[in-house]
Parts: sequence; structure tokens; C-alpha cells
Amino acid sequence: MSSPAVTPGRALVFVGFMGAGKSTVAAEVASALGGEALDSDRLLEQALGHSIAEEFERGGEQAFRAAEENLACRLLAEATPGSVIALGGGSVLSARVREALKPHLTVLLDIDAQTAWRRVGGGASREKRPLAADRDAFVALHASRVGLYEEIADAIVPAIGSRVGTRALSALSALARTPGGTKLLWASAASGEYPVLVGRGLLQMKVCEAVWPLDRASSRPFCVSDTSVAPLYAERLGDVRELVEISPGERHKTLASAEAVWSALVAGGMTRADHIVALGGGVVGDLAGFCAATYQRGVPVVHVPTTLVAQVDSAYGGKTGVDLPQAKNYVGAYHQPVGVIVDPDTLQTLPEQELAAGYVEVLKTALIAGGELWRRVASGTEVDERTILACARTKLAVVAEDERDSGRRQVLNLGHTVGHALETVTNYERYRHGEAVGLGLLAALRLSGTPELRVTVRELLAARGLPVALDGEDTEEIVAATLRDKKRTGADVPFVLIQAPGEVSTGCHVPSQELYTAVSELQAGV
Amino acid sequence: MSSPAVTPGRALVFVGFMGAGKSTVAAEVASALGGEALDSDRLLEQALGHSIAEEFERGGEQAFRAAEENLACRLLAEATPGSVIALGGGSVLSARVREALKPHLTVLLDIDAQTAWRRVGGGASREKRPLAADRDAFVALHASRVGLYEEIADAIVPAIGSRVGTRALSALSALARTPGGTKLLWASAASGEYPVLVGRGLLQMKVCEAVWPLDRASSRPFCVSDTSVAPLYAERLGDVRELVEISPGERHKTLASAEAVWSALVAGGMTRADHIVALGGGVVGDLAGFCAATYQRGVPVVHVPTTLVAQVDSAYGGKTGVDLPQAKNYVGAYHQPVGVIVDPDTLQTLPEQELAAGYVEVLKTALIAGGELWRRVASGTEVDERTILACARTKLAVVAEDERDSGRRQVLNLGHTVGHALETVTNYERYRHGEAVGLGLLAALRLSGTPELRVTVRELLAARGLPVALDGEDTEEIVAATLRDKKRTGADVPFVLIQAPGEVSTGCHVPSQELYTAVSELQAGV
Repeated sequence: MSSPAVTPGRALVFVGFMGAGKSTVAAEVASALGGEALDSDRLLEQALGHSIAEEFERGGEQAFRAAEENLACRLLAEATPGSVIALGGGSVLSARVREALKPHLTVLLDIDAQTAWRRVGGGASREKRPLAADRDAFVALHASRVGLYEEIADAIVPAIGSRVGTRALSALSALARTPGGTKLLWASAASGEYPVLVGRGLLQMKVCEAVWPLDRASSRPFCVSDTSVAPLYAERLGDVRELVEISPGERHKTLASAEAVWSALVAGGMTRADHIVALGGGVVGDLAGFCAATYQRGVPVVHVPTTLVAQVDSAYGGKTGVDLPQAKNYVGAYHQPVGVIVDPDTLQTLPEQELAAGYVEVLKTALIAGGELWRRVASGTEVDERTILACARTKLAVVAEDERDSGRRQVLNLGHTVGHALETVTNYERYRHGEAVGLGLLAALRLSGTPELRVTVRELLAARGLPVALDGEDTEEIVAATLRDKKRTGADVPFVLIQAPGEVSTGCHVPSQELYTAVSELQAGV
Repeated sequence: MSSPAVTPGRALVFVGFMGAGKSTVAAEVASALGGEALDSDRLLEQALGHSIAEEFERGGEQAFRAAEENLACRLLAEATPGSVIALGGGSVLSARVREALKPHLTVLLDIDAQTAWRRVGGGASREKRPLAADRDAFVALHASRVGLYEEIADAIVPAIGSRVGTRALSALSALARTPGGTKLLWASAASGEYPVLVGRGLLQMKVCEAVWPLDRASSRPFCVSDTSVAPLYAERLGDVRELVEISPGERHKTLASAEAVWSALVAGGMTRADHIVALGGGVVGDLAGFCAATYQRGVPVVHVPTTLVAQVDSAYGGKTGVDLPQAKNYVGAYHQPVGVIVDPDTLQTLPEQELAAGYVEVLKTALIAGGELWRRVASGTEVDERTILACARTKLAVVAEDERDSGRRQVLNLGHTVGHALETVTNYERYRHGEAVGLGLLAALRLSGTPELRVTVRELLAARGLPVALDGEDTEEIVAATLRDKKRTGADVPFVLIQAPGEVSTGCHVPSQELYTAVSELQAGV
């Protein structure tokens, strides 16, 4: 099975919490590369002549960690390109081990605490699994390590079975060919899996082609972009069969634009074996994604988002569509991409206002995620590739649970219910989407009864020059438009409310009077 | 779990070949109805005091059949509405048993010979499974019974696991409320399962509502039809929230029509909880199906086909779409219906030419199916509900194997490669789709090297007044158009060829010279 096409240029090192399946995945991947994995836990037990649990009993955790560190450092020092290593869950606690990881490709097999506890048979005797005897301690241990794992990982792959490693292998190999600092997320939803690459400089001549998720010889790229973005970045994609440019801006996310794209694809001789590249912001992504979903009943699409809102939100998750004159996003399809390539350097050419509007989605995502992402965003720091990566990861985790918007995915509508109503009432002319959602977030935080959080968000919005008050729109009209929301399936409009960063509820009932109060408050600008 | 909504008005009797899982499915269904299943094999063994295999040993098959017949007749005579019975595989060989089945709802758990052989562990000792000792004898036995099972079955459900019975239960209950003679097929594809009801008089006031596959109180129907069909049949559907009528005919299968439909749905206040009804022929089905696939990223659709081509072919399998000015069916989606309701009585209002054009799809389907369906069609008999049912079943079986047209489903393109080219060259004006496919079938049969079969098909076409010769179109042009086929993914156009009825090959390479000869022959009209 070994072939130069999939052999990575660096050793592949799997890290992650206990129960993630590092040994099994590493073995599968090594076998696909025609070799055998090196498993630090197993090698350590061989060297000790007894089990790790027994080593804990005999010398305590400290002695075990010292032995583990020495072994891991030796393995990493001796590793060559193509080596596959599974490291014990705690070994990355050592700074020496983290240093030794640097020349290699570190893959985090990502698992949440609950699943891990279940998988390791948590609560069994301390003799067998010394660190999985007590549930609270186990969860705390997981929480204490998550940040560390993320920091050192070049790639994050969800621990969803032993085969995920081999399915992600060609993406891992592509990662090994990228400039330093590029990160890979392996996205997984009900209808498909795909690599997301995030890194500064990815959209450089040659680099982009080298990491492309499809074989361009057998599947020709047809690029859809707009007349603002195409002149800046289309060339960076390398050879494309056809470049279709639409007019920029939300008001061109129409069936007429879609028809122009489909016609250009026909004229260019696109077949089912070819694929579409969506190069641009949210409008291009939604439109090109919809054209891909429906051209000859579906062709693959690669997203190359170039705006902040697309890089943190809209490029992931497979929602595609166009607007009808009467209603936004009313015609569309779910169509997962085959890959997303994110170069945060493109944000340098983004107008200030666009950046600010995109920032609202960062804020929303951070509120949903809570934890480290929220702390970073709440501190008011600039949005960098790390924040973009964390937002992408949050969005992908939500979509993985609920691709079709029937449950968990609805958390992503935080701030959007009143936001959409505001856009409708102002005929999509007064506010950018992000600006409307920003105001919608303030309304949602009022409805949630979290005044302190509302103050923080209000300050963050204001600091970016984003509106925190309405511009004289009619309160009654906004309330009425809110109650006609698209998400409504029966009599009630389901609201998304937030108890605290990371704690979001969907499908909440909100009395009209409270809604009226929340919108009035926006009117007053407090 | 028992509720009046799902308790059928007649007893449910599961029949089918050994290995289909009748006992397990019956037990599941009975349990869902709050009772216990009666299993004739098990009851017989209890009565005999020894195994069926032993009874075979002692008295031979004849003695066993006599005992089985008596028991089955008694069970059926004593059965009440809500009873669930699993009958031994061979019991329906008895005319007395078949007579006793009549008041009940007979459900065939459909299994092919290969799968059955695998499931029963075929080839094991004769002592254990007296009828599954020899493979050839087993396959011959299966073939000898298939026709009988189909003849007596009110419902045909594929044997795809024990749960399929409970998933199909509400459809079986609906069937129990239909006029006599209605048949149910349970369709199963990768992206969904749904009931297909075929019966004369289904589209009568009240009947249609009684068998509707969705609860109309929680999901309101929005009907899409055309101005020819709607006046005849829309009222029969019962209350619908909105009736959207497009202009009839292939040239209205456009984005403009789709936009008109989407707009009407918005104006009518359709939400994601509601559903679309496609009432009409192939154009309405494709268009309404596409609107359903994309309205708010997907709402359910119920197909109520009223033309022959739609009843035997296009209403099943989830292919939806519209034409671009440059290319037919280039914009679309896969979207399985939630139910199909077929009333062959609607064919009485169908123009002669439409009926003839639809007949070509019957012919094509019979060529693909072979066996009993081919014999019936080749005999020149009129198309009746039995033929429609058999065609639907053939199509569904193909789609079940390959929903997305990447393999087996391509057999359905038999005759379509040259047929499409002919339509293109004549600008879709000279030939109806069916007429073009009829000529395409003749070309495919020439390319297949099956001259006798070609003669039969030519006679069947001619007998219906369908063209069997070109009308002076340019041979070169047709060949060139064929080689630009949409299915082409690389240099080669994959052809569908046929060795004999029921034996079809896809992805065949055809030298241009042979193609030229086949088209020239159509030119000559021989």
C-alpha cells in the first residue's frame, strides 16, 4: 500500500487523551504506509518488564513520567519520514517531549471527556487504569490537557474510529508539504468528511496546488469567484479550466447569478468528474456551493474563503443557497465540500467594514464555544489564524453533531433571529449581515437574562465600530418580522439563548412582550 | 405501542422464501402492535413434537405439506384484524392456503436467491435444512416460487433487516384501508425509504387522503401541477394549502418555472414542516421534486404521477431537475420522495401519443428486468396495473443498489445515449422523449449484437405507432452529439448494451464506426 503519493515528508505522531484510540489508528496508518507503528506505551511496558499500572504502583506517577519522557524523546529523535508513532496520553506534559515533536507532524486524535470515560471503561479498578478510577478527576485531567494538545497539534482529527487515520492520510501527507504553521482539521459530517487547512501563505503560487484535496489531472477545477476577489487571488490557485466571475455583493446572490454560473460551466465543458472551486466570501461560497450541489445533480466543491466571515463560519458545514427576491436563502441545498483551504493572509486585502462584519461571527462563535476561544475573544485581541482555527473547529463540531439543522446546529443561529428580522425590515440595505447579527446578539443576550455578558459584547462591538443601537427602525415592525422567521415550523419562533459562554439553549420560547423590550432597548441604544 | 392509527384493518401475513426473516419481522411488527406473532413453522413443530427437518425424514415433503396446509388454513381462518402471522415459505403452494389468505393483507418479504442462500447457511446438512442442501436446486426452487409470491402479495417489502417491518407498518396500515387490488411496494434507497402505492381508484376523493404518507395536520400539502392535469385531478387530493400550476410540456421544465414555484411557496407561507405534492407527469415530477429538494434546503415531496412515463419510471428514484437552455437536466438534485401514489386510472385521460411515448419506458424497463415482465411486454399485451407495478419494482430495485448513478443505475440509460443525441440534434422539437428513446433502443440493440431482440422491439414500437426510422436527420450529426453525452466523464462515452432480456451491461466501449453503422441503420429504417 505504500506509495510516494501518501508517504509524508515528516514522521506522523499521534497524541491525545486516553481512549482516543491512538495505538489502533497509528497501527492502521502505519500499515497503509507499508510499515509498523511504534507505540510508546507498549514499548515502555516491554522495557520495564511490567505494566504501566504496576509502574504507577511501584514508583508513583513521577517515576513513570521520567521513563516515559526518555523513551518518547528517543523514539522521536530516531524517527524518520514515514515513521508512525503513538505517544502515551500524558507524555506531552514534558517540555522535552514537546521540543522533540517539533520536526514531526503531530496529530491530535480528539476526544471529549465523556466519550473517553466511556471508552476506557472508566471507574474500573485503580490497578488497571490508574488515571481513570474517578470520574471527576478524569474530567478535570481531560480539561487540563486539552489546551496543551491543541497547542502542539499540527492536525486535529476526531477520534471517530480506527479508520479515520487512513481516510485522512492523504490530507496529512499534504499537510507535511505545507509551510510551517499550517494546521489541518479533519471535518466529519453525516454526508461526508473533508480536510480543512488553515495557514498563512497557503494561497501562494505552487503551495495551493501542492495541498489540493483532489487530483487535478483527473478532476479539472472550475473556479467561481467575484470580480473583486478574482483579480487578487485567482492566479494563486494555479491552472484552472475556467474562471467564472460574478458581481460582488449580497444582492448578486440570486438565481440569475446561479444561472450565469451553470451556463458558463456547460460552455466550459464541465463534466461530473470535474469540480468547482469557490474563491471568495460568503456570497461566492453559498452561490458556488449551490451550483456545485445542483450542476448535473452534484459535483465536488473546494472552498477557498477569502473573507473573515467565510473563514470562520460560512465555508464550513455545507449550507449552500441563493436568495429569492422575497426571501433570503430560500433556495439551497446541503452539500459538504471536499476540502477547505484557508489563508488568513487574504484578510489583509479585506475592507475594514467587511472585517468588522466578520468579527461578529467570531464573537458569536466564541460565545457558543466558551472556554479558551471566548477568553481570547473577550480580551479584545486581534483575530489571528489561531482564532480562525478555533472558530472553524467550533463550527465543525456543531455540524458533526447535526448536519441538517434539526437540533444542535441551531445554536449557530444565536443572534440571527432578531438579526434577520432587522435585515428584512431595512430591506437588506441599512446593515451588513454582520452588523445586523451584532445587534441581534445584544437582543439575544437581553432575552437570555445575562446583562454582564451583554455589556462585554456591547463593548467588543463598539470597539470595532460596529453599531450597538438601532438607527430609528420601527420596534413593532422588527418584532413582527422576527415572529415570521424562516425557522418557524409551527406557531412559535424558536429562539437561541445563552446562559454563559459555552452554554447555549435552542428552541426557547420567548414571550412577545420580552422580545418587544429587548428590541426597544436596542432602539434606546443602551 | 399499540394505537388505532397503526392497527391494520386486516391481519398481516408475512410470506416469502426461506431466509427472508419472516419470523423475526413478524415478531417485531406484532410487538409494535402490542401483541405476539403466530409463526406457522414454530407452531407446526410444537404440534408435531419434532422438527420440520425430522418430519421431512419421516414422512417426506408431502406429509409435511399436508400438515402445514391444515395449520396455515386454521391460523388464517382464526386471524382477526391486528393479528400478525408468519407463514412457512412453501405453504402458499397450496391453493387452499392462497384462498384463505384473501381476506388478509399478505406481505411478501422479498429476498433474492443469492442472499437467501447465504442467510440460511446453504449447503449445510440435509438433515437441518432439507431444501437448502444443494445450491442449484435452491436457486431453481426460488425461481419457481417468485411468481407465486408476487401474485398473492398485497405488499412487497425488501428483506433488509428485522426492523423494516415496523418502519413500513404505517404504510401497511394505510394499505389495509385502500380499495381491493391496491399494492404496496416498500422502496429503499441509500438516502431514504418510502411507500409506493399502486391501485386503480387510489386517486378518488377521500381514498387518497386516507392513504397519504404524511400527517396532513402537522405537514400541510402544497401541490405543484400543470394546467392540463390540475383541472382533472387536483381536487381528488383533498384539501391542499396551495395549488401551483405551471404550463404543461417539456419546454417549461426551466429555472423560470422553478422560480415561479418557489415564489408561490413563499407567498403561500410554506415552512420546512410542510410538504410538496407533485401531481402530473415527468416534467411536473422533475420540477416539483427539484423545488422540494431546494426549497429551504429541502422539504418532503409526495409524487402522484398521472402519466405512463411517470408511473413506470420517473416518479421513483429521486432524480429531480430542470433544463438549462443549453442542456437538458443539467441542474438538479437527488431527493427521494416520502411516498408515491399511483392510480393507473389516470391513464384513461392521457393522450394516445403520450401513452405511446410512455410505452417506450415500459419496453426499456422490461428489457432490463427480463423474466416475467419481459414475457408479458413482449407478448404485446396492454399495459395494466400489473405491468406498472412490475416496472416500478424493477426501477426501485436498481435504485436501491445505486442511488447516485455511479454503477448499476446506469442500466436505466439503455437506449438513452443515442436517444438524447437525437433529441439534441432535433432541438427537442421533432421527437417526444419516448420516441427518441425508442429509436435509441433500436440503436443499442444493434450495438449489442442482438438482431432477433431488435426485431421484436421494432415490432412492438411499430405496433404502437412509434417511429422506427429517422426522419432524415444527419447521421454524422447524431453520432457527434452522442459522443458529447453528459454521462461522459473522460474521453469515452459509456454505452449500455444488452445480451438478453435481463442481462444488461454498462460502461461499454463502442467504436465510432459501429455507432455510425447503428445510426445509419435507423436512417434506412430497417
